Amino acid sequence: MAKILIAYYSKGGSVKKMAKFVEDGVKESGVDVVLKTVEDVAADELIQYDGFIFGSPTYYGQMAAQVKKLLDDSVILHGRLEGRIGGAFTSAGNIGGGNETTILSILQAFMIHGMVVQGTSKNDHYGPVAIGAPDKRAERQCVDLGKRIAKLVKKLCQ
Amino acid sequence: MAKILIAYYSKGGSVKKMAKFVEDGVKESGVDVVLKTVEDVAADELIQYDGFIFGSPTYYGQMAAQVKKLLDDSVILHGRLEGRIGGAFTSAGNIGGGNETTILSILQAFMIHGMVVQGTSKNDHYGPVAIGAPDKRAERQCVDLGKRIAKLVKKLCQ
Amino acid sequence: MAKILIAYYSKGGSVKKMAKFVEDGVKESGVDVVLKTVEDVAADELIQYDGFIFGSPTYYGQMAAQVKKLLDDSVILHGRLEGRIGGAFTSAGNIGGGNETTILSILQAFMIHGMVVQGTSKNDHYGPVAIGAPDKRAERQCVDLGKRIAKLVKKLCQ
Amino acid sequence: MAKILIAYYSKGGSVKKMAKFVEDGVKESGVDVVLKTVEDVAADELIQYDGFIFGSPTYYGQMAAQVKKLLDDSVILHGRLEGRIGGAFTSAGNIGGGNETTILSILQAFMIHGMVVQGTSKNDHYGPVAIGAPDKRAERQCVDLGKRIAKLVKKLCQ
Repeated sequence: MAKILIAYYSKGGSVKKMAKFVEDGVKESGVDVVLKTVEDVAADELIQYDGFIFGSPTYYGQMAAQVKKLLDDSVILHGRLEGRIGGAFTSAGNIGGGNETTILSILQAFMIHGMVVQGTSKNDHYGPVAIGAPDKRAERQCVDLGKRIAKLVKKLCQ
Repeated sequence: MAKILIAYYSKGGSVKKMAKFVEDGVKESGVDVVLKTVEDVAADELIQYDGFIFGSPTYYGQMAAQVKKLLDDSVILHGRLEGRIGGAFTSAGNIGGGNETTILSILQAFMIHGMVVQGTSKNDHYGPVAIGAPDKRAERQCVDLGKRIAKLVKKLCQ
Repeated sequence: MAKILIAYYSKGGSVKKMAKFVEDGVKESGVDVVLKTVEDVAADELIQYDGFIFGSPTYYGQMAAQVKKLLDDSVILHGRLEGRIGGAFTSAGNIGGGNETTILSILQAFMIHGMVVQGTSKNDHYGPVAIGAPDKRAERQCVDLGKRIAKLVKKLCQ
Repeated sequence: MAKILIAYYSKGGSVKKMAKFVEDGVKESGVDVVLKTVEDVAADELIQYDGFIFGSPTYYGQMAAQVKKLLDDSVILHGRLEGRIGGAFTSAGNIGGGNETTILSILQAFMIHGMVVQGTSKNDHYGPVAIGAPDKRAERQCVDLGKRIAKLVKKLCQ
């Protein structure tokens, strides 16, 4: 039975809200999902999941150190997550504020684990971006991301 | 019947050699493959393929203008390549010479088409890099890339 | 006497409008400036300028092929632009639409020429982004970019 | 009197060795330099320096979490480091192993602080990369980076 982990770091609450919208999308697709803060995820626990959707605020153009720590710790599983699915989302202070590079920083880490990632031809191509708290546009994109990752997990990991 | 396009631009011949190694990998996997220079590919022809593996020399840290032109022209198919598979490889003058950003420039373009891309936990994580002409190490990675993309095409596009 | 080149590619007109705002910023700073489309710039002409501000629409997450062609052609000056100044701006279809990666694709090319680039702690950190036609926010940032590059040119190249 | 901070995180020792070579380059240029591990740098201390050269191992294609933590903490100085100078270096496991994206992750953070960064037309364009322990090639590039940043600091910050 496929299972997706949504792990996020949120200080102001915007990323947490986005995480819940992403969770809605996964659930609608009928895939099991666990929602946690990155601080509550132990690196060796990652082996249990088929898909990973990480959320982070945009801090200096990359994921927050707390999210990076989990990824650095995940080296104990290096090579064993090959072929699993990854996605990312972020909340940023403003439009050109480093949001794309933040999402790509997470996706690149997933690729280095040998994971599969997917863009979208619509809206935020690399992953959902909220400017501050998520508006309707960001909400819809988060739900879509959840569905997109769930669909890939079902096709590639079951 | 799934089909993969390998399209490349090569001036000195290194990228062309890599393209043939990638082709070997696809063929070994039993997936149909077409090998062409980017100049010989018409944008509307891209609709016929399930997977795309683009090769470019590293020119100022991104794909060559000739490769970019094909991608720019592919806007006529925007939205219709969603869910297809993409991969990339490059030959560069030296180690920190812009090779990773070149490969990522192609993968990002594919993601904006809504495509699926995959890294690898071994060796060149984003895609194969040759320093100058491809050595045995680069050859092996190119074959692996062909196999990796063929495997995804078979799982996701047939 | 220091001189800055603003070179842009514009199809719909948004990037051209941004280019003119950038020009205003350079002029206010009292530095000579030439404004041209990339098609009107010959690569060997680049040797005459101390600063370069390139503008491009966001096409598949990188600069347009027309802009890339000029940069590829500029290899005839490789090593001779070391220490000069570079900046970039873009117009994109939507927020997470590849605008940051477009600006960074230009800045990375400039860095490979050995140039100096600068971010800003305010607004669009890597360079000005307009969503569609430039609004007041984008206009102000374009003027600021012109001033920022002019200031660096005056300090480093006169 | 201008002063440069070299801050690094090193587990295996390769990045530490690179840091010392960078220090040599700064010293040769006659600029004051402080060499510290990132764990020994308090964020508010950054205000004292004119130039920053950060070193990190390549961990999943970005700077180590320890380096990111210092940058995240530096938000207390946001806007006050505008116009200062930044550079970066890394040690990676292999050629396409995420080293360029690691260096760019640091340079992008510096740009978001409004800092000035510079590439080089020779060798590793974004910053020095060692594959494992630094060889002669990496050593020379580290010394060059120290000199390059020192030169910019002298021109822009004194």
